[in-house]
Amino acid sequence: MQLSEINALLPFLLRRENVARYEDGAVVMCDRRKYPFEKAFHRCHDVEDAARAIEDMVTQGGGPQYVGLYAMAMLAGQVADQDSVKQREAFQTARQRLVRTRPTNTSLARLLERAIGIMYDALDEGQSVEAKLLEWIEHIRDLSYEKHLKCGQFGASLIDDGDGILTMCFAETSLLMTLAIAKQQGKNMQVFTPETRPYLQGARLTAPSIHEIGVPVKIITDNMPAHVISEGKIKKYFTAADLVTLDGHVVNKIGTFQNALAAHHYGVPYFVFTQAADKQKPNRASIEIEARDPEEIRTCRGVATTLPEIDAYYPAFDITPPEYVAGVITQHGILSPYDLARYFG
Amino acid sequence: MQLSEINALLPFLLRRENVARYEDGAVVMCDRRKYPFEKAFHRCHDVEDAARAIEDMVTQGGGPQYVGLYAMAMLAGQVADQDSVKQREAFQTARQRLVRTRPTNTSLARLLERAIGIMYDALDEGQSVEAKLLEWIEHIRDLSYEKHLKCGQFGASLIDDGDGILTMCFAETSLLMTLAIAKQQGKNMQVFTPETRPYLQGARLTAPSIHEIGVPVKIITDNMPAHVISEGKIKKYFTAADLVTLDGHVVNKIGTFQNALAAHHYGVPYFVFTQAADKQKPNRASIEIEARDPEEIRTCRGVATTLPEIDAYYPAFDITPPEYVAGVITQHGILSPYDLARYFG
Repeated sequence: MQLSEINALLPFLLRRENVARYEDGAVVMCDRRKYPFEKAFHRCHDVEDAARAIEDMVTQGGGPQYVGLYAMAMLAGQVADQDSVKQREAFQTARQRLVRTRPTNTSLARLLERAIGIMYDALDEGQSVEAKLLEWIEHIRDLSYEKHLKCGQFGASLIDDGDGILTMCFAETSLLMTLAIAKQQGKNMQVFTPETRPYLQGARLTAPSIHEIGVPVKIITDNMPAHVISEGKIKKYFTAADLVTLDGHVVNKIGTFQNALAAHHYGVPYFVFTQAADKQKPNRASIEIEARDPEEIRTCRGVATTLPEIDAYYPAFDITPPEYVAGVITQHGILSPYDLARYFG
Repeated sequence: MQLSEINALLPFLLRRENVARYEDGAVVMCDRRKYPFEKAFHRCHDVEDAARAIEDMVTQGGGPQYVGLYAMAMLAGQVADQDSVKQREAFQTARQRLVRTRPTNTSLARLLERAIGIMYDALDEGQSVEAKLLEWIEHIRDLSYEKHLKCGQFGASLIDDGDGILTMCFAETSLLMTLAIAKQQGKNMQVFTPETRPYLQGARLTAPSIHEIGVPVKIITDNMPAHVISEGKIKKYFTAADLVTLDGHVVNKIGTFQNALAAHHYGVPYFVFTQAADKQKPNRASIEIEARDPEEIRTCRGVATTLPEIDAYYPAFDITPPEYVAGVITQHGILSPYDLARYFG
């Protein structure tokens, strides 16, 4: 399958150009806060803009890594006429700002470390940093889509005709590829997606995207997964991961863990998609869980859900230990969570 | 403690006159759809009005049983000049309409069965059916508050100073009595209440009510309980029940079960408040789970959470088996879920 064919299989929100692109010196992304009610695009004109777009969840999931990288390319263009010492300082300051945006998912931090190497090499060799970085970004995006395709093929191999499938939050390209391929194979499926409060990724992003590729999907609220599993409606549970530690702990949107507990209780296997465990995150103790503004809990799409004086608590992610993970779906195959160091260590 | 003292301990929403009252020939209740943003009262002028108020969740939890009973008293007043055969027909038709409103919680159905007996006796004896029924309703409400007080005393005995407490949905008077008494005993507590989508009982009813009596409370979303428990923040889990079967299955707002699973996983005991197991509900197979309109899942306080063409699923309750229930808190004490038949069979 060609990359263009993959893109054509994907729903609007996951098409490469809509996730993030670099256009006329700006970083452009589909605004995930407004989707699916509006297909609006958000433009960032400097690194601070891009950092805030990540913090404010204009983009999320797989988006921030590319928004951050394009922001570095944008910066490289903006400082290209400064001396190389100043350019290096600007790159490091920008990198630190972008790494600080959201602490749990380390994909952007890891990519920025590699990007800085590319940028310094280009400076040393007197090449356009912006051009070299953009070339590299497109190259790793190509590679990533190839990995998504492999993950989709492995994922589809796990689905049986008639399966009920639970997911959580927005498992993005690997899950959508999985469903698209399983559908091409003639398998019937019924997906259930919890709405994923407070940001409603499940209701706003996942359900419309699955519906768009023609797979039946039902929204449930976040308090329903265990009951729906208890009714026998779920045969497989699939999510993405914001982080997988080298010893197989899965960090993903809050709620993933309690669904995994319920799935395990009923013998429903839990599979997680990732392209890499983070080798600098050896175990549970190395995970940083982002605490977000409690105000986000007191509202839903801008409408108050309680009184302003009521306190709230908003840990954004949770941790599923490896004993609840049946398989980690990667470009290398469906791995045991206990065998990740061999591939990613 | 006198009944008037109990009422003074309770927050606005749970004061007897605000739950439901019979006034000027109408049934009046605080509108729980609008609380806490408005303290509005809803008036019903016939049985159909009252049935719709229950179906539309103008009142919920402990409210429908009294709204239904007062509606019967209102009807008795309205048909008092008809012959006794017509009156009996009217009572039976009304009873059937009210029982049909919401199928899972059987409290109203059980009370209506007793009410019909009172009403027929009054007819036979040539007394005012309306007056006799109202007298009985006030009597059983008195008894119920006395039971709530005992449940509150037993509940408070389970709380240790410094406890973190998880609840779900709106556990009403028994939980609020428990917290008020524990506070009087000088115990510090931190309650966590999931918001309880889609109707937001946790965010709108529970949290403001607990805040009103001066106990610290934090709202979380429904995907967070297992994570908050995993952080060691929760020592006890308390809920009410819409139904308890004679063999100890607890039926309560959807989400109760997955929280109980997570609590059990971490050794946190789960306690449920009830005034009676239903002796006509011997086991799990006898439970009817209400399926509500999926449209309620696609909105939050009237705001869309997804596109109208996306399918949704809304089972309103779930079932927690007795092996996850540490104790059933009743007026008789903290009972084993396996010993209910001795008290309620």
